[in-house]
Amino acid sequence: MSEIQYVYFFGGEKADGDATMKNLLGGKGANLAEMANIGLPVPPGFTIPTDICTTYYELGGSYPDGLEEQVDDAISKMGEIRGGAFGDPDNPLLLSVRSGARQSMPGMMETILNVGLTTETIAGLIKRTKNARFVYDAYRRLITMYSDVVMEKAGGFEPEEGQGIRQQLESLLETTKETRGVENDTDLSAEDLEELVAKYKAKVEAVLGAPFPDNASEQLWGAIGAVFTSWNGKRAIAYRRIENIPDEWGTAVNVQAMVFGNMGDNSATGVAFTRNPSTGDNVFYGEWLPNAQGEDVVAGIRTPFPVSELMKGESNSDVESLEVRHSQCYGELIEIQHKLEQHYRDMQDVEFTVEDGRLWMLQCRTGKRNGAAAVRMAVDMCNEGLIDKEEALSRLTADSLVQVLLPMVDPEAETNAVLLTKGLPAGPGGANGTIVFTADEAVRRNELGEKVILVRDETSPEDVHGMNAAEAILTAKGGMTSHAALVARAWGKCCVVGCGELRIDFDNKQMVVNGKTLKEEDWITLNGTTGNIYVGQLDLIDPDLEHNDYFTTLMSYTDEYRTLKVRTNADTPTDAKRALDFGAEGIGLFRIEHMFYGENSDEPLFILRKMIMSSSEDERRIALDALYPHMKTDIKATLDVMSGYPVTIRLLDPPLHEFVPHDNVTREKLAGELGVDLNEFNRRADGLHETNPMMGHRGVRLGISYPEIVETQVRAILEAAIELTLEGREVHPEIMVPVLGHVNELKNQREIIDRVYQEVLDKYGVSNITHMVGTMIEIPRAALTADQVAEIAEFFSFGTNDLTQMSFGFSRDDVGGFLPDYIAQSVLENDPFQTIDQQGVGQLIEMGIERGRSTRSDLKVGICGEHGGDLDSVIYCHNLGMDYVSCSPFRVPIARLAAAQAVIEG
Amino acid sequence: MSEIQYVYFFGGEKADGDATMKNLLGGKGANLAEMANIGLPVPPGFTIPTDICTTYYELGGSYPDGLEEQVDDAISKMGEIRGGAFGDPDNPLLLSVRSGARQSMPGMMETILNVGLTTETIAGLIKRTKNARFVYDAYRRLITMYSDVVMEKAGGFEPEEGQGIRQQLESLLETTKETRGVENDTDLSAEDLEELVAKYKAKVEAVLGAPFPDNASEQLWGAIGAVFTSWNGKRAIAYRRIENIPDEWGTAVNVQAMVFGNMGDNSATGVAFTRNPSTGDNVFYGEWLPNAQGEDVVAGIRTPFPVSELMKGESNSDVESLEVRHSQCYGELIEIQHKLEQHYRDMQDVEFTVEDGRLWMLQCRTGKRNGAAAVRMAVDMCNEGLIDKEEALSRLTADSLVQVLLPMVDPEAETNAVLLTKGLPAGPGGANGTIVFTADEAVRRNELGEKVILVRDETSPEDVHGMNAAEAILTAKGGMTSHAALVARAWGKCCVVGCGELRIDFDNKQMVVNGKTLKEEDWITLNGTTGNIYVGQLDLIDPDLEHNDYFTTLMSYTDEYRTLKVRTNADTPTDAKRALDFGAEGIGLFRIEHMFYGENSDEPLFILRKMIMSSSEDERRIALDALYPHMKTDIKATLDVMSGYPVTIRLLDPPLHEFVPHDNVTREKLAGELGVDLNEFNRRADGLHETNPMMGHRGVRLGISYPEIVETQVRAILEAAIELTLEGREVHPEIMVPVLGHVNELKNQREIIDRVYQEVLDKYGVSNITHMVGTMIEIPRAALTADQVAEIAEFFSFGTNDLTQMSFGFSRDDVGGFLPDYIAQSVLENDPFQTIDQQGVGQLIEMGIERGRSTRSDLKVGICGEHGGDLDSVIYCHNLGMDYVSCSPFRVPIARLAAAQAVIEG
Repeated sequence: MSEIQYVYFFGGEKADGDATMKNLLGGKGANLAEMANIGLPVPPGFTIPTDICTTYYELGGSYPDGLEEQVDDAISKMGEIRGGAFGDPDNPLLLSVRSGARQSMPGMMETILNVGLTTETIAGLIKRTKNARFVYDAYRRLITMYSDVVMEKAGGFEPEEGQGIRQQLESLLETTKETRGVENDTDLSAEDLEELVAKYKAKVEAVLGAPFPDNASEQLWGAIGAVFTSWNGKRAIAYRRIENIPDEWGTAVNVQAMVFGNMGDNSATGVAFTRNPSTGDNVFYGEWLPNAQGEDVVAGIRTPFPVSELMKGESNSDVESLEVRHSQCYGELIEIQHKLEQHYRDMQDVEFTVEDGRLWMLQCRTGKRNGAAAVRMAVDMCNEGLIDKEEALSRLTADSLVQVLLPMVDPEAETNAVLLTKGLPAGPGGANGTIVFTADEAVRRNELGEKVILVRDETSPEDVHGMNAAEAILTAKGGMTSHAALVARAWGKCCVVGCGELRIDFDNKQMVVNGKTLKEEDWITLNGTTGNIYVGQLDLIDPDLEHNDYFTTLMSYTDEYRTLKVRTNADTPTDAKRALDFGAEGIGLFRIEHMFYGENSDEPLFILRKMIMSSSEDERRIALDALYPHMKTDIKATLDVMSGYPVTIRLLDPPLHEFVPHDNVTREKLAGELGVDLNEFNRRADGLHETNPMMGHRGVRLGISYPEIVETQVRAILEAAIELTLEGREVHPEIMVPVLGHVNELKNQREIIDRVYQEVLDKYGVSNITHMVGTMIEIPRAALTADQVAEIAEFFSFGTNDLTQMSFGFSRDDVGGFLPDYIAQSVLENDPFQTIDQQGVGQLIEMGIERGRSTRSDLKVGICGEHGGDLDSVIYCHNLGMDYVSCSPFRVPIARLAAAQAVIEG
Repeated sequence: MSEIQYVYFFGGEKADGDATMKNLLGGKGANLAEMANIGLPVPPGFTIPTDICTTYYELGGSYPDGLEEQVDDAISKMGEIRGGAFGDPDNPLLLSVRSGARQSMPGMMETILNVGLTTETIAGLIKRTKNARFVYDAYRRLITMYSDVVMEKAGGFEPEEGQGIRQQLESLLETTKETRGVENDTDLSAEDLEELVAKYKAKVEAVLGAPFPDNASEQLWGAIGAVFTSWNGKRAIAYRRIENIPDEWGTAVNVQAMVFGNMGDNSATGVAFTRNPSTGDNVFYGEWLPNAQGEDVVAGIRTPFPVSELMKGESNSDVESLEVRHSQCYGELIEIQHKLEQHYRDMQDVEFTVEDGRLWMLQCRTGKRNGAAAVRMAVDMCNEGLIDKEEALSRLTADSLVQVLLPMVDPEAETNAVLLTKGLPAGPGGANGTIVFTADEAVRRNELGEKVILVRDETSPEDVHGMNAAEAILTAKGGMTSHAALVARAWGKCCVVGCGELRIDFDNKQMVVNGKTLKEEDWITLNGTTGNIYVGQLDLIDPDLEHNDYFTTLMSYTDEYRTLKVRTNADTPTDAKRALDFGAEGIGLFRIEHMFYGENSDEPLFILRKMIMSSSEDERRIALDALYPHMKTDIKATLDVMSGYPVTIRLLDPPLHEFVPHDNVTREKLAGELGVDLNEFNRRADGLHETNPMMGHRGVRLGISYPEIVETQVRAILEAAIELTLEGREVHPEIMVPVLGHVNELKNQREIIDRVYQEVLDKYGVSNITHMVGTMIEIPRAALTADQVAEIAEFFSFGTNDLTQMSFGFSRDDVGGFLPDYIAQSVLENDPFQTIDQQGVGQLIEMGIERGRSTRSDLKVGICGEHGGDLDSVIYCHNLGMDYVSCSPFRVPIARLAAAQAVIEG
C-alpha cells in the first residue's frame, strides 16, 4: 500500500494493529486489535489513529485527503464480516464511534452508538430483527447521544446547567413514562418509542436550530468530528491537568460494528475485571445488566447484577447472575478472561455484550485497581510466575502505596458507632468530613481548609474538580464500575457508591437516610473498605501494615534491588519507631525545635519561649541551662531508638518569632518569668517580627548571633551520644547546620561545635565520640559554592523545600495565590514543591553534589525535603548518586519502592 | 648578606628600601626610605617589616632569631649618622617607635617617643642640651606614652572609661599646673617637671603594679612589642572592618632617631599638604606649633598656626606663620614639598620638625583629600602635565565622587538662618541632624533611623563607630589635621573642627555656645565647606555640578575610555532630566508603579489602589480604563525627555498589598468608590496579605493572574511610543517583565504583549513600532535557565538586589537583624547588597549572560540593581561583557568613572 495508512482495521481474528501501538491507536484501539489478533470475538471495526486528531486541529477541523476513501473501504470489509452494509435500507450495518486516547480518560470524551439509523434503515432493521421496540429504543439513544455530543457540544452550544439537550430529551422520556404509568424504559412499547422519537427530533430542531441528520454518512462524519472535538472539551482538559496528560497526545477514533445487548431478554451487557480490583483477590469480578447497552452499566442508571454466584452477597442475594442466566456465554467469558490475563500478564478490565445469546468482546484494557489490590496482585502474580519481581515492582505506583498507607476508620470507634447505612465499597480507606452536595461547594470549602464529603446521586465528569477536593465521595446510585467508583479508585480516594437508601434533597441542602435527615455541614464518616456510613466524625487510624503480608513481601522485594538508603524525618522516639517499622534506615532530619512541648513553666516549650524572649546573653543562658536537661533527655531517647542507624540532628532553624505565643495569658506568664511587664514583653515580641521571615533571622544566622544557643544544642547531642555509647548502644549523631549560604558561616559554627566537642571529651574522659558535622544545602548560594562548603562539611543534606522556594522565589506560604493560575495556564506542569523541578532547581542540586564531592570525595549526600517521599524525585536522587533520601515515616515505603524502581529502570 | 633581612635601614641620603616596598615596609617605612634615597633630611632609622608582625603572632609574642642583632647594628649606624649612642649616659641617642601599616590607619595604632631616656641618660642629655626643662618634658611624655601603650594596653589592662593611666597622669599634670598657677605645659619649670615625673613613676607602679623601666633596651623592645600588639587592638580591628583592611596584612615598626620640635623657642613641629586637601587649590597648606612635638599638632590639644601668610584669615590674623618665624626652614620646606610632589606625582602629606633651627622630615605620604579636592587635583595635575588622563581617572575613587555629589546646605536657607558659630571646615558638604554627645548614643539613635550630629571636645579612635554613624562631626578643639578632620575627610563626611566657642556639658547633656544652650536632640546644621554652624534643620540641596568645571572635565575624560553604557533608574521626567545632566544614556529601569501619585479619586494613585482592591476582572477593567490615560501621558512624558535613548519600562512589580492604604479615611473612600462597605474592603485587604511578600504574588505572577493589567500597561507604552514617533521624536521603549523564574512565564506574557502590539498597529494604521521585549533576571532559576529564557527575551536586565536576596536567602528588609553580626565576626567581608558577591551571586550572573547569549548572540544585557552605581560592581559588569549598567541619577557619574577605570585596568 503506497498511500498513507489513515485507518487500522480489526476483525475476523486479525488486525492491522496490535497492543504495542497504543501511542498511535490509543489504548482502546490497540487492545481491540490485539483481541482480534488472539482470536477473540471482537465486532469488526477500525481505528483512526491519534495523529489524525492533531492533523484535524492543524487543518482547522478538516481531515486529510484519502481518509474518507479508506474509511469507506474499511466499512465495506466490516459489512462482509458482520453482514449488512452501512446505510443499506434492507440490511443496515450500525456503527459505534468512540474515542480512545493513549491513556484512559474515563467518561471524559464522547461515544455515539447506533450510528447509521435513518428513516430508511429503521424500516429495514425492523424487518430483519422483527423487534420494532428495540430499533426505536436504539434510535432514541442515537438521537440523544448525537444531539448532545455532535450537535450541541461540538457545535459550541453552552446551555445553562441542567438545560442541555440531553436533559431536555430525557425529560420527554420521563414524561412519556409517567403518561404510560411505567417505571423502566424497557416497559415502554414500540409505539410509545416511535412517538417519542418524533418528539425528540422536533425538540432537537427547535433547540439546536437544525434537524437531526437523516443520513448515515453524515451521522458517521459528524460523530468522528465530535470525538476529535471532545479532546479539547473543558472536562477533558481539566482531567488532563489533574492526570498530567500532555495536550498534544490527541485521541484516536474507534468505529466498530454495533452489537446489541439491548435486543431483548436473550441479550445483555456487562463490564468485568479478571481479578477483584478492590481487594486484588484472584476471582473473576464484574457486573451485568440484561437487555441493556454498555452505557447503562457505567452510567449507574440501573444498579447492575453480579456476574457470578460467588459475588452475590446479603444485599443482592435475590438477583440473577450472568453465570446462571447466560451460562454458556459465562463459560466462554471465563476462558477469555483467563486467556487475556495470561496474554497481557496483568489484570484486565473488559466490556462484553451478549447479543441474542452470542458473546462479543467490546473492550479490554489493563484494569485500574486500588492500592491494596495493586500490592496483592503484584505479589500474587509473582508467586504465580506470571511476572517476575522487577515487573512486580515496576508496576506499582506511589499512589497505590499511598492508598495502602491511607488511614482507615478506627475499628474500635466503628464498634461503638451507629451505622447510618451501607453502600458498595468502591474506594479504599476511611474518611470523615462534612457533607456537601455540589462539586463547586466542595472546592470552595476545601479551599477554606475544611474536610468535606461530596454526596451526589451519581457523579459525572462535571463533578471531577469537586471529587478531587473532597475527602471522599458518596453516591446514591451506580455500581462498582460507575464513574464515581472508577475515578475514586484511580485516585486512591475513599468512596462508597450505590447507597440506595440515600435520598438527596438538593433544594433544601439535606439528605434523608432511613428517616434520618442530615444537612450540609453535618459530619459523616465513610468506611471505603466495607461501604459502611456513620453519622459524626469517627477517629481515623493508620492501617495495620505489620500484618499485611502482601505489603511486607512487596517491600522486601524493594530491598533486593535498591542501593539508595531511605531515612526518615522524625522528631520524637515515637515517630522514629514508626519509621523503623516502615523500613527506615536512620533519621535524615531531626528538627530540634520540634521536640519541645508543654505550656507549664517547667516544660521545655515554655522554657524555649523564655529563651527566645530573653533580651541578653545572660537571660538566654539561664533559660538554656533550664532547657538543657530536657534537650539531652529527648535527644537521647531518639538516638536510643535509632541505635545502629545515623541520626541527623538539625540545629535550631525557624525564625524566632514563630515561637512567640499569641495569647496574652501565656505572654503574661512568660513576662512574669522574665521579670518584665507585658508592655516590655510585647515590645520584644514586636522586635522579632520580620517582613519576610523565610529569608530572615533564622537557621545558622541565629547560631552566629547567639553562639550560646549552638553550644547548648551541641552539648546535649554529644553528651547524649557518649552516655548511650557508654551504655553499649551504637549511635551516629550527625550535627546539621541549617540555612547555610556561605562557607564562613559553617566555619564559624564548626569552631563552636569543635570547642564543645573537646569540652565533652574532657568531661567524660573519653578520646572520641562518633559524630559528623554537615550542613543543609537549601540556599542557592550554598549549592553554587558547594566546593568551598565541603571543605568544612562532612555531609550535605539538600533541603529541597527551601531550595525550591529560593530558586523560584516562591514563598510556599503564599504560592496558593498564584500557583493554581500557573497550573491552569500550563505555565508550570507540576507544583515544584511536590516534584523536584529538575530543569532549574535540579541544576543546583547537581552542581552541589558535583562540586561538593570535588572537594571531599566521600561527602555523604542526602535529601530531606518533602521531595524525599516523591517517587519521581527519589528516582532523580538515585540517578544523581545521592547516598540517601529522607522523608516522613509514612512515605518511607514509597521511597523504598522508588529507589528499587530507579535501579530497575537503570 | 646571607642571613634573612629583618631590618631595613634608612638615613644619610640612602636606604635599604624604597617607595615601592609598601607591602613589606608599610606606608610610613617605605616613604621614609624613599625620602632618604632622594636626599631629604630624614632622621636615620630602620623599619622592621610587616611580615615580622605576622611572625610575632605566630610565635606567640616572640621575635625571630637574629632580629635583635640586626636591630643593634642598625642603632649603631643611626648613632654614627645622628651622633650619640642608644643608652649612652653621656650622649644618649633617643628613639621614636611608630607603627606603619600598608594602608594608613590614622591614630589607630601606637607611637612611643623619646625611647631611651633613663635615670642615667637624663643626666647626660641635660648636660649636653643644657635644657633640663626640655629633658624632663620629654621624659614626662615618654612615661605617659609608655605606661599607656606598652604597660597598660599591651599588658592587657582594661581600665574603666576615663580611668586609664594616661588620664591619671594627665590629671597629675593638671594638678601641678593649677598648683603653679600656670595655663600651658610650657610654663612649667624644669623643677616642676622633675617633681612631676617622680609622681608619674610612683603612680605608674601603683596602678599597673610594675615600675616604669629604667633601661633603654627594655624600653625599646617593650615599645616594638606594643606596636605589634596594637595591630590587634579593638580600635584597630574596628577600623579595619570599616575600611576593609585584611587582618593578615600586619604592621611594620619604624624606629627612628628622635628630633625635637620641643627643644625651645627655636624648635617647632608641623604637618602640611603640598596642596589644599579641602579645595584642591595648588598652594602649600599646613599647620605648625612652636616648641612642640608632633603629637601636639595632630591631637588637637593646642590649636596650631598656619604655615604660610597666605593661609591666614580673619580668625587667625594675629598668629605667627612658619613662613615668618622660621623663614629659612620654610624656604627649604617649600623646595622639599615641590620635589616630593614632582617625585611622587601626587599631593603629599608631610610631617616635619624644626630642631633648634634645623629642618627634619619625619613622614611623607600621599595626602588624603576630600572629593572636590580630588577632582580638582586630578584635572589640575593633568593640565600641569604631571599625570595623564588615565592616571587622573585611576586615582579617583567612588567615595571622592560621592563627596562632590553630596548635598550641601541650601544657600538661600543659609542667608536667612542665624549663625550659631563658626569652626574650621574639615569635611565637605552640608549636614543636619540632632545633637548627640557620645559615640555610643550616635550609634544607638542611628540604628533607630535618626540623623545625628556627633559633638565632641575632640575625637579619638574610640569614637570611630559613632563618627561612622553620625551625619556629621563637630568638635570644639583640634585643627584641620586633627583626628576628626582626618577621619571625616577620608570618609567624605561633613565635619567642622576647632569650634572654640563651644562648651560641652556632658553631665547635663547640653552645650553652650555664645550663651545659647543646646540640648541633646536639638537640631543643628553644619556647612562643612565654610565651617558655619546653624541652629535648626536647614534644607540641604544638591550641589551645582553644571558649573563645576573640574567635575565636568573629569567626566569628559571618562567618556574617552569607557565602552560600557551608563543608564539611570528613573520614574519621572524630572528624574530622567536630572540623570541626562549627569550623563545618563537612557533609562535602565522605569518602575511603572512609581509614577503614580495623588490621593484624590481622579488621581492615578487612587485609581491604582481601586484597581488593586477590585475583586473581579470587570471591576479591575473599570479602574484600569480610568488609569489608562494617566499612564499613557506619564510614560509619554518620560519617553519624550529620553528621546534618542532607550527606556526600559518594567511592568507592575510589587506585591499588591503594598498599595493598600493603612488609614481608615482612605480605606472608606476607596470602599465607597468600589461600592462595598469597609468590612468587605478590609476583608479584601486581608486577602492580599502575604507571609513572605518578597516571594509572593508579584511581578510576572500578577501578569499571569490578571492579564488585563498587562494589556493596559503595554497599550499605554506602545501608544505613547507611536504617538511620539508620529510627532518626530525618537523613542526606544523596552518592555520588561519582572520576577521571572521560568521561560513559560515570559511566553505567556509575550503572547499578551504581541497581541496588544498588533491591536495598536491596527489602531494607528502603522506597520511597526520600535520596541523590545525582555525580562529581569532576578530569580536564581531564571539565571540557571537563561538559555531557555533568551528564546523569548530580547534583553536581560539583572536585578541584582533581588538576585542577591534569593541567592543568599537574605530578606533585605530583615537583614539588619543579623548582617551586623556577620560583618563584626568576619563571616562576610562586605554587605552583598552594596557590592556584588562575585563568588556566589556572580556565578548566576555569569551563567545568565553566557547561557542567554548562547541562544541569542545579540542579547542586550544590563544591570539595574543598586549595584549599578557601585564602583567595584560596575567594573565587574564591564568585565562580564554587559552592555550597560543602570543606577540612580546621583550614581551615574560614579558608574561612568568605574566604566572608564574598568577599561584602563584592562
